[in-house]
Amino acid sequence: MRVGVIGGGQLARMMVPPAIALGIELRVLAETEGMSAAIAATAVGDYRDAATVLAFARDVDVVTFDHEHVPQDVLARLAENGVAVRPGAGALAVAQDKLHMRERLSALGSPVPAWARVGDEAGLGEFLAAHGGAVVVKTPRGGYDGKGVRVVREAAEAADWLADGPLLAEELVAFRRELAQLVARRPSGEVAAWPLVETVQRDGVCAEVTAPAPDSESLQAPARELAVSIAEGLGVTGVLAVELFETTAGDLLVNELAMRPHNSGHWSIDGAVTSQFEQHLRAVLDLPLGDPSPRAAWSVMVNVLGGPEGQTMPDRYPEALAAQSGVKFHSYGKLSRPGRKVGHVTAAGPELDDVLARARAAAGFFQG
Amino acid sequence: MRVGVIGGGQLARMMVPPAIALGIELRVLAETEGMSAAIAATAVGDYRDAATVLAFARDVDVVTFDHEHVPQDVLARLAENGVAVRPGAGALAVAQDKLHMRERLSALGSPVPAWARVGDEAGLGEFLAAHGGAVVVKTPRGGYDGKGVRVVREAAEAADWLADGPLLAEELVAFRRELAQLVARRPSGEVAAWPLVETVQRDGVCAEVTAPAPDSESLQAPARELAVSIAEGLGVTGVLAVELFETTAGDLLVNELAMRPHNSGHWSIDGAVTSQFEQHLRAVLDLPLGDPSPRAAWSVMVNVLGGPEGQTMPDRYPEALAAQSGVKFHSYGKLSRPGRKVGHVTAAGPELDDVLARARAAAGFFQG
Repeated sequence: MRVGVIGGGQLARMMVPPAIALGIELRVLAETEGMSAAIAATAVGDYRDAATVLAFARDVDVVTFDHEHVPQDVLARLAENGVAVRPGAGALAVAQDKLHMRERLSALGSPVPAWARVGDEAGLGEFLAAHGGAVVVKTPRGGYDGKGVRVVREAAEAADWLADGPLLAEELVAFRRELAQLVARRPSGEVAAWPLVETVQRDGVCAEVTAPAPDSESLQAPARELAVSIAEGLGVTGVLAVELFETTAGDLLVNELAMRPHNSGHWSIDGAVTSQFEQHLRAVLDLPLGDPSPRAAWSVMVNVLGGPEGQTMPDRYPEALAAQSGVKFHSYGKLSRPGRKVGHVTAAGPELDDVLARARAAAGFFQG
Repeated sequence: MRVGVIGGGQLARMMVPPAIALGIELRVLAETEGMSAAIAATAVGDYRDAATVLAFARDVDVVTFDHEHVPQDVLARLAENGVAVRPGAGALAVAQDKLHMRERLSALGSPVPAWARVGDEAGLGEFLAAHGGAVVVKTPRGGYDGKGVRVVREAAEAADWLADGPLLAEELVAFRRELAQLVARRPSGEVAAWPLVETVQRDGVCAEVTAPAPDSESLQAPARELAVSIAEGLGVTGVLAVELFETTAGDLLVNELAMRPHNSGHWSIDGAVTSQFEQHLRAVLDLPLGDPSPRAAWSVMVNVLGGPEGQTMPDRYPEALAAQSGVKFHSYGKLSRPGRKVGHVTAAGPELDDVLARARAAAGFFQG
C-alpha cells in the first residue's frame, strides 16, 4: 500500500511514524529539499504544476495532503487520470475558500457566526452597522495562523483587501473559549471521533490544546454530531478538524474547517490509542478506522514557537529531557526563528493541573 | 544529532519513528537493498568490512547496532578513528560469545545455570553425568532464535559442533517460566528499567510477551537490581535485555543477554511512556533517559510469525483492523514465509484476560 502526500511540512512528517509501524509506504512531494518531511520525500516540485503532481501520483494508491492549497485544476487532472484523491476536490474546495465554506455550512444547517459576502465598502458598512460596529473580515483564500484575518470598525480598514475581490465578513463572536472537534471518515462511510478539545490561540496561532476540553461533558456529544454531519455533508475523507467557538451563551459555532491532520490533534500521537496521523492514513486508504479513545484522563499539547534563532529543539534536550522525563518531545527538524512552529510537547496523566504544568515547563525550555 | 545504526533489520526500522519524533537524524548501514529499515538506509554494505563501516561512521555522532555481529576488529578500527560506539566493543564481546558471557556473569556474581566450557566429548560426558544425563549445549557464537542450541543426552550428539571448537554446556534448568528484564544505561551512568515481563517462546522463538509479568510483585525489584548490576558491571550503554528463567524453586537465573532493543521490549512502543527504541537513542546519545513506566495495567505483544507465503501484513488489514480497532499493528515490511518474524501486534488495557485475547486474535489474522 502506497500513500502519496502532497506537501513536505510537519504534517507529512508526522504521518511517517504510523506509516512505518503499519508497513505502509509513504511518498512525499516536497516543495523544496530539506523540508520537515524530507525523510519520506521521493520528489521535489511545485504542487501547482499538474505534470509534476501527475508524475508523482503515478505509483501510489491514493493521494492526500499536507496542506489544502493544491489548485482545483490540478485536482481535476488527477481525477481525469484515475488517481484516487482523498479528501476529494469537491470537499477541498470548501476548505480552500472561506466564502464557499460559509455557504456550504449554512446550507447544511451547521451553526455559524452571522456572516455576509461583502464586495465593497458599502456592503461592509452595512454589515458593520447591523453587527455592533466591529466585525471580522477574512480573505476567502490563503489565510492561516491568523493571516488574512482582521477586526475592523470602519469599512475603509478593509479597502486594500476589497480591491482584490469580495471578502467574508463575520460578526465578532462573544466566546467563552475555542474548541476543536476532530473526526475521521473513510470513503465507505465509517467515522471515528476524538474527544472535543480546548484550544488556546496566541496571536492567531494555536499555542496549547487540552484533551478533553475541561468541563465539556455536555458539549462532547453535540460537537461530535456536528463534526460528523459536516464530514458526511461535505463528503470529507481523511481527518476533518472543526474549529469551534463556545459562545458566552454556551452554544457551539463553527469557526474554521481543515481537511487534514490539524494542530489541535497533535496530542493524539501520544494521548490516543489511534493518533490523527495513523487514522488519516487508514481513512484515505479506506481501511477500518482505529479506536480514537484517549489513553489518559488528560493530555496537554503545547506548541514550541520560536526559540533562539538558528537553534533546533535537540540543542536544548540535555536540560529539557532531564527536567521532564515523562513528557513526549516532537521536533519538526526546523531551525528556530521568531514565531515559527518548530515542534510541540505533550504530557498526559490523571491530574490536569500536573499535566498542564509539565507540558508548559517542557515547552518553556525551547522558547527562552 | 546523528545516530548511525549498523544493520538494516526491524530493530533499526523501529528506531526510525522515535528518531523522527525527537528530530534526531538516523542513518542506517543496511546489508542489502530493500531491507526492513530501508527508509533510513543511507549506505548498503558489509558490516564485516572495516573500510565500509568507517566510511559510514564518518558523519555520525555515535554508532549503534541492529545486531551484535560486528566483528571486534571492525569495532577496534572505529575506536582508533575516534568514533563513539555504543554499546562499546568490550560490552559487545560479552554478547558475541556465550562462553565469554558465562565467564563474565559468573565473575560478577550473577545467578546463572551450572555451566562448563567443554572442548571434547569426554568433557561433555562428564558434564552430562554431573547434571542428570540431559544438558543444553550451545555454540558460543552465531546462535539466535533457537539456532545453535541443542539438548543432548549423549556427548556424541554434539560431535559435529565440537569439531568446530569448544561449546558451552549448561544444566537443563527446571523453570516455571521465562522472564525478561530490560534496562537502558547511558554513558554518564543514568539507568532506567522497564517492568519485568513474561515471555513465551515457541520453537526457540519469542512468541508472546506480557508486561508486567503476572504475579511478579516479589520478582520486580530483584530482577531490576540484577539487570542494573549487569549493565554496570559490563559497562553496557543503550538497551540491555536480560533473559531470565524463573526456576521451579522461585529463583531467577540469567539465560541470555542482548545489548540492543529486544523482542521482549516491543510492547513498550505502545505500552510504555518511553519505548525501548526511543530510550536506546537517548542512551547512546548520552541524553537524559525517559520515563519507562507502563501506560496501562497490562500490555501483551504477540509476534506475527510466518503467514501466507509471499503476502505482507497489510494484505490482511481489511479484516484484522476491523476486528481489533484498539490493537496496534506493526509490520516490518517483509514478505511472509514459514516461521519468519514479519511483525507484531500489541494490545493494552486494564484486564489481562481481555488484553491477551485481543492481541492473540489480532495476530491470528496474519498466521492463518
